[in-house]
Amino acid sequence: MNKIAFQDCYPDELSHCYGCGKNNSDGHQLKSYWHTENGQISEQIAENTIAHFTPKHCHIAIPGFVYGGLIASLIDCHGTGSAAAMAYRQAQRPMGTEPALRFVTAALNISYLAPTPMGRELELIGVFSEVKEKKVVVEITVYAGDIICAKGTVIAVKMPSSMVKEH
Amino acid sequence: MNKIAFQDCYPDELSHCYGCGKNNSDGHQLKSYWHTENGQISEQIAENTIAHFTPKHCHIAIPGFVYGGLIASLIDCHGTGSAAAMAYRQAQRPMGTEPALRFVTAALNISYLAPTPMGRELELIGVFSEVKEKKVVVEITVYAGDIICAKGTVIAVKMPSSMVKEH
Repeated sequence: MNKIAFQDCYPDELSHCYGCGKNNSDGHQLKSYWHTENGQISEQIAENTIAHFTPKHCHIAIPGFVYGGLIASLIDCHGTGSAAAMAYRQAQRPMGTEPALRFVTAALNISYLAPTPMGRELELIGVFSEVKEKKVVVEITVYAGDIICAKGTVIAVKMPSSMVKEH
Repeated sequence: MNKIAFQDCYPDELSHCYGCGKNNSDGHQLKSYWHTENGQISEQIAENTIAHFTPKHCHIAIPGFVYGGLIASLIDCHGTGSAAAMAYRQAQRPMGTEPALRFVTAALNISYLAPTPMGRELELIGVFSEVKEKKVVVEITVYAGDIICAKGTVIAVKMPSSMVKEH
């Protein structure tokens, strides 16, 4: 895949997130994209977002099943990444251009619907339910094959200046 | 502190959780206790639960602030641990006795109220809002000193037999 992930467009100083930052070598490095349905539609008109992640052996709850905190983390980072991508699209700006449009999570609501099996690649699909300049809401479903393991809502808000000042 | 953490009473085969399992050397190993208010009340009458955790350097969102996925994980494991402890108390059984009373998360709802600063020990306080035999709801507040960083609700349910069968 030669597309660039949303998270890989974040400026370097905002790319340290344990869940998705390309500069955090210890982290999950989740990568989110527009869901082009295997190339059947273009990135420009894709409405949903997609990410894949295969949990490591240590990411277990009990033997055989993925730990819920990881699912929460993936949903969180796929949500804020999707929010940033949508904000750039709404602004008709290429993703990654300055000033950075970066979102943080105001609220995260997750329902765990089925135990998530280990040893499989998970797929996250994001659907936008609200898009405003400073607030984007993304509904995310986590699949392990045909199993819907979890559904989550990420209420993402534009990163407050109090956080950006730090670096 | 010579008290035994809730999670350290889980049977060995249920102690692999990345968030809190004593047998997961890669994980967070969160430890939850009855909140005895610095020994002013006994474990037997303590109504709330407490846990502490100091994020590692890699657990960042952006420089200076803790990544929300970690907060979610800590809330999750403090919630299910608190639920197990309460279930044992309700059953008038010492924690850790067989058959194990172990809970999993059905839903996790988190509000991030303030950016969580790095470099400080976090404190989680759990308050029970619903206690039934198969369902326990715990309201958890995460503090960094005086700052309330996040509030979360964990809806914990008794571990389904489909998960326990696996090991």
